[in-house]
Amino acid sequence: MTKTQNTGADALCDTLLAGGVDVCFANPGTSEMHFVAALDRKPAMRCILGLSEGVVAGAADGYARMADKPAVTLLHCGPGLANGLANLHNARRARSPIVNVVGDHATFHRAYDAPLTSDIEGLARPMSHWVRSTESAAAVAGDAAEAIRAARTAPGQIATLILPADAAWSETAPAAPPVLAPPAPATVSADAVADAVAAIRSGRRTVLLMTGTALRAEALATADRIAQATGVRLLAQQSNNRVERGAGRVAVNRVPYPLDGAIATFRDVEQLILVGAKSPVAFFAYPGRPSTPLPEGCRVLTLAEPGDDLPGALAALAEALGVGQGVQPTLQPLDRPALPTGALTADSVVAAVGALMPEGAILCDEALTSGGRLFDLTRGAPAHDFLALTGGSIGIGLPLALGAAVACPDRKVIGLQADGSGMYTAQALWTYARENLDIVTVVFANRSYAILRGEYRSVGAGEPGANAKRLFDLVEPTIDWVGLANSLGVEAARVDTAESFADRLKAAVGRRGPFLIEAVI
Amino acid sequence: MTKTQNTGADALCDTLLAGGVDVCFANPGTSEMHFVAALDRKPAMRCILGLSEGVVAGAADGYARMADKPAVTLLHCGPGLANGLANLHNARRARSPIVNVVGDHATFHRAYDAPLTSDIEGLARPMSHWVRSTESAAAVAGDAAEAIRAARTAPGQIATLILPADAAWSETAPAAPPVLAPPAPATVSADAVADAVAAIRSGRRTVLLMTGTALRAEALATADRIAQATGVRLLAQQSNNRVERGAGRVAVNRVPYPLDGAIATFRDVEQLILVGAKSPVAFFAYPGRPSTPLPEGCRVLTLAEPGDDLPGALAALAEALGVGQGVQPTLQPLDRPALPTGALTADSVVAAVGALMPEGAILCDEALTSGGRLFDLTRGAPAHDFLALTGGSIGIGLPLALGAAVACPDRKVIGLQADGSGMYTAQALWTYARENLDIVTVVFANRSYAILRGEYRSVGAGEPGANAKRLFDLVEPTIDWVGLANSLGVEAARVDTAESFADRLKAAVGRRGPFLIEAVI
Repeated sequence: MTKTQNTGADALCDTLLAGGVDVCFANPGTSEMHFVAALDRKPAMRCILGLSEGVVAGAADGYARMADKPAVTLLHCGPGLANGLANLHNARRARSPIVNVVGDHATFHRAYDAPLTSDIEGLARPMSHWVRSTESAAAVAGDAAEAIRAARTAPGQIATLILPADAAWSETAPAAPPVLAPPAPATVSADAVADAVAAIRSGRRTVLLMTGTALRAEALATADRIAQATGVRLLAQQSNNRVERGAGRVAVNRVPYPLDGAIATFRDVEQLILVGAKSPVAFFAYPGRPSTPLPEGCRVLTLAEPGDDLPGALAALAEALGVGQGVQPTLQPLDRPALPTGALTADSVVAAVGALMPEGAILCDEALTSGGRLFDLTRGAPAHDFLALTGGSIGIGLPLALGAAVACPDRKVIGLQADGSGMYTAQALWTYARENLDIVTVVFANRSYAILRGEYRSVGAGEPGANAKRLFDLVEPTIDWVGLANSLGVEAARVDTAESFADRLKAAVGRRGPFLIEAVI
Repeated sequence: MTKTQNTGADALCDTLLAGGVDVCFANPGTSEMHFVAALDRKPAMRCILGLSEGVVAGAADGYARMADKPAVTLLHCGPGLANGLANLHNARRARSPIVNVVGDHATFHRAYDAPLTSDIEGLARPMSHWVRSTESAAAVAGDAAEAIRAARTAPGQIATLILPADAAWSETAPAAPPVLAPPAPATVSADAVADAVAAIRSGRRTVLLMTGTALRAEALATADRIAQATGVRLLAQQSNNRVERGAGRVAVNRVPYPLDGAIATFRDVEQLILVGAKSPVAFFAYPGRPSTPLPEGCRVLTLAEPGDDLPGALAALAEALGVGQGVQPTLQPLDRPALPTGALTADSVVAAVGALMPEGAILCDEALTSGGRLFDLTRGAPAHDFLALTGGSIGIGLPLALGAAVACPDRKVIGLQADGSGMYTAQALWTYARENLDIVTVVFANRSYAILRGEYRSVGAGEPGANAKRLFDLVEPTIDWVGLANSLGVEAARVDTAESFADRLKAAVGRRGPFLIEAVI
């Protein structure tokens, strides 16, 4: 080992650790063996194996959302990266910081077009903000520092560093460069604040549409004080990387997912002021329907871009509006739903979660059609974080909970999981067991891609026929989630009444470690 | 429904069916609902649901290898395509024909950058030979015909057609254009044949390196007659899309996967004549090792490119060499290994497969380190097809068997599956049950990514340390493959002796339908 202490791979690990990146979600292959060997010399780096790269990438997203800093993923060549792209798409939409390290053939081997060769940069670019292939061991530390800087550039970016095997295995000088400090989030301009002030003072019906760090508790309190003082309405984007909410915090509604609901939400709105958010668009297009739910003539202003200092922008706006210190934010009181009884339905599952979730919980929502009331019925639960699917690519839920649990080992993570989506990355359960993560997983076992039944009607296709049913219904056979969880080392139970669900949830919340509840609805 | 009988989606389905594409491996989403609605009007299209796109893409590869024609995949936007890219990489390396249909937002919706929006063409290109985004319903039929033509261009290509939702849902004229006939495989030039003849007659030690249709039984017989008449050696590429072999056929060796083995294989070779094959390269680069196993100065000639008529090229070569009709090919006699006894090992599993596999079986090999003797120990088994991992991207095995079983419902498919790789696409088992596919799956449960332990040493990293072991070993917990299979509707059994394995395999071969054997080795 004495001869390989200062390889490019060592420089990469050292730079990552110096940059505060000390969790590595990994599924390595041969071309990453020198990086793995370097990891063996860096016990400060926590390595967590995912049994597919969808798990790895989604876990890095969940980790970043809760740790407010990147993890590193270790992926094997183009195909390994490709397996992670769907959840990197979600992370990109969540604006989560992630550093991907993708192994590649040695530079001298590329010309031979060996079987695993592919266009890694081409694959990385659609889902990455920053892509670089490092070309030598000497360049690794500097490139890694820039990757970290790119990832940490507000509000968070996907940085993909391609590491040829010879850059990893060759020796280099041990000195790691200082990690470049990421640029601080930009302060919004006085003009942007003045425009927002003028718009609000015009008396037109105005919505502040927020996302990102504008949805952390303190920023929401500022926004609420503005709302009280001026009459503007607050709204969160339809999907957000993280919302701090629950009792003792300001409650905020989200733009509904269904287009009709979104249109109703904005019906009388004359002005929209964006605070890190995107102007709302329909999730999908439908024949003869508009692409945006905004009413015609609605004016859209930008107070702050996603990379700006969003809490600072809200504070500046409050100050410019002359919102006095006497205006106190309206805080959500503790107000849990009653424990449901009787037959188990999606809503009664959700109500029981609202009734029983503990203080400081992290809710990871990929319940899709089953979660229609989740946001409402957890509004008055004890203070918690809410993480949601951001990019519409299913299979994020189980990995998201994994990453959140790694980032916050002292908090209970509750994953609300649609069954069809859960099957995309069910491999994550094995890592729950391996790392003994404190996650309660609730699978909504409706035995179908229920969302597609609704969308089939929405597009005007009528009732599903034989081929469509074969594609929508998860029956013949039904999936035994208890057996599946057990096979991967996770304890589990199946329930079909509201009472038994509540009993199981209470027990699972009261203990540590992973547990899965298959809620047959 | 009367108003939507002639949509772009209908035109697509009609064109696919007219082009002989009548199997659709699918995991659709909202943007594909009109295609699904059209499928409902086309009962001739068989729709098979995969619970992740890795399953869908790998199944299309297996189907194409055995059906010698493409299936269509139905994938949901960029992320759905991304999930399939790793197995499309393998299919690309296998040169399997596949038509991908990837749904996209309606053309007028793209500008809004809705959450699922991504650069689909950018994602498709690295793993596709042909990519097109169709822009209107009127263009769909023509574009689909070209996609089929591209896919069927010898030796087989990946064609990706992006279908915006409005092109799918808009009405168009019902007339489907004729499907363009794919170009016939090219006849090799007289010069290429003459060069090969001269090389062979020079008396230098020569290898014919073959792949693709050169490895079908009749072409192999021609090659063997050449070998007998001239003394050239026959070799197959390290990995190949399909080899027809077993008793009554010509046996051919493959280039070994380990670099040392490959170097030994070519040690005294002075000339290599490529018959659809690539000049051999090391699968990975290693410090201080060569990128190719060929000895210095070895001359490489190309008799036939991959897209050429390979059986025709061999026939032309035989004729030009004057190989007389009296030269008969040496056919492999029936010669099964003895049934093993005692402790279960990878080799005894493989020997039992060789001893018990039925006539006409299709072997799907993703056994990796456990399958070291598989090719040898099945050499004298009854006539069968052998399908292997071609692109080095793990997770192809279970889907490959799925597709082969759909293509050949009257043949027994036997999947030899490494456990780590199997976990990538274990969801495929559910489709085995749903479609009652006649597949016996043998999982080599060595509880590790065993190949990485070997590669770790190969790159000179020494013995794995704590972090490396966490990444290589599939323990804590071990995976219960029987429970996993059962949870997805597939019967299964665990065995740990050679006798019990043989008993289970015999029983599984003797019945129809899916069965999984977890071979604890």
